[in-house]
Amino acid sequence: MKIIGEKINGTRTRVAAAVAERDAGAIQALAAAQAEAGADWLDVNAGTPPTTEPDDLTWLVETVQAVTDVPLCLDSANPAALERALEAVDRTPMINSINGEAVRLEGILPLVAEHGCEVIALALGGTKMPEDVAERMDTVHLVMEHTRAAGVPDDKVYVDPLLMTVATNTQAGRTTLDTIREIRAAYPEVHLTLGLSNVSFGLPSRSHVNRAFATLAIAEGLDSAIADPTDRELVAAFLAAELVLGQDRHCLTWTRAARQGRLSPAASAAATRPAT
Amino acid sequence: MKIIGEKINGTRTRVAAAVAERDAGAIQALAAAQAEAGADWLDVNAGTPPTTEPDDLTWLVETVQAVTDVPLCLDSANPAALERALEAVDRTPMINSINGEAVRLEGILPLVAEHGCEVIALALGGTKMPEDVAERMDTVHLVMEHTRAAGVPDDKVYVDPLLMTVATNTQAGRTTLDTIREIRAAYPEVHLTLGLSNVSFGLPSRSHVNRAFATLAIAEGLDSAIADPTDRELVAAFLAAELVLGQDRHCLTWTRAARQGRLSPAASAAATRPAT
Repeated sequence: MKIIGEKINGTRTRVAAAVAERDAGAIQALAAAQAEAGADWLDVNAGTPPTTEPDDLTWLVETVQAVTDVPLCLDSANPAALERALEAVDRTPMINSINGEAVRLEGILPLVAEHGCEVIALALGGTKMPEDVAERMDTVHLVMEHTRAAGVPDDKVYVDPLLMTVATNTQAGRTTLDTIREIRAAYPEVHLTLGLSNVSFGLPSRSHVNRAFATLAIAEGLDSAIADPTDRELVAAFLAAELVLGQDRHCLTWTRAARQGRLSPAASAAATRPAT
Repeated sequence: MKIIGEKINGTRTRVAAAVAERDAGAIQALAAAQAEAGADWLDVNAGTPPTTEPDDLTWLVETVQAVTDVPLCLDSANPAALERALEAVDRTPMINSINGEAVRLEGILPLVAEHGCEVIALALGGTKMPEDVAERMDTVHLVMEHTRAAGVPDDKVYVDPLLMTVATNTQAGRTTLDTIREIRAAYPEVHLTLGLSNVSFGLPSRSHVNRAFATLAIAEGLDSAIADPTDRELVAAFLAAELVLGQDRHCLTWTRAARQGRLSPAASAAATRPAT
């Protein structure tokens, strides 16, 4: 499992304040903590209006790059912001995201192709969340037609099957698992990703719910997630799922993680987890 | 998920000592703790030689029944011990276990049928652990032929597909998951159970591994386990799996467990983290 570190996101109050105040230290602390924890990408989302987003996203890129070499995941629906940020990046980033809307396919996909980026492709056709698997697959087919036409190789595409909370629809997890299975069968070379914590929105004890869903999704072929890499319980759940699924040769990754103290006992890990 | 509480087992040093010394208090503490935690059955295993086992198992039954009404799971391969213990039980117990060996089918299955017990049926044909799914299914078919011939309804049979550690065979978990799927398809009315902690034998940080496997097995149809009901992380993992699989109507079981504080310190720490 690869992890797209989710914490530098302008929809979070503290990040929004740091962006507004150009508080580089606050952003860099989030970047360093996620990099240290082993994030494979760091998502950067300014969360600001289209007029200021190009400046804000570029500032985020430069601020984060000053403290880590971990590649970025530029998180914006705004082609102008992405274009400016792409000029500032040191390493080819991932782009978050395209979907089935013409405005994104026309505005963002050419940037992905031109810069050789990896890209998150949502199974979302418009602004309304699709209820069922078939509607999501229709969008996935449409988007894949466009990425292929643009010359983006399938293995640079991270398809997001969409995940909604089970709090309002108890079948939401099942629908996403079924969608993952269909995407895996139809496009064997693509990667899969999703925003894991969505599944537990509005519920108590969310961490358990996120881990249970992650375990099932990994079994269906999920190979990355937008998540908090500093959540040791979650990372342990990823590694344990791969272990029991027979994907950890000689159990080496598991035993190494244990030796490095990265799987610390559930209770103490939780007790010592720093406030986020 | 139903839980067969595993702690009163004579293969554990402290339990063996308590049985030898007739230390009722030690056994009753284990019984009370597991009953309080919500065990559906309490396994009782004397772990002593055939000559003394009838007395020892009967003492265990009487000792446990003095403090709890939770039904017992009489754990013995010795028909004489089971017969004596069956005379002492207040409520119809589960029997642990029969398998494909003629000596068990002839010695134990008649007791199961006569007393209307539930019974654990291992997918084990002899003393050697079967490597593959096909060999296990051969045994399951054989045992089911016998339980049906003896008049034991399928829904009183708890088939154990066998689980070995991934430490020595990384595909061990996969094999068990595949076996569960085949049993579920061939015998829709039976229950499934297994000794969960086997999967992590010899590995560090076992609890994570047990929980990951349980989550995947529940998705395939596992509906009970021989496990420690006082392990709150494990019980939370069972409930979380059922929740994300859409088996918890209106999320009522989950939210009730959270309200009752049954989802462990780790869970509540995560729950109080600010939303990201």
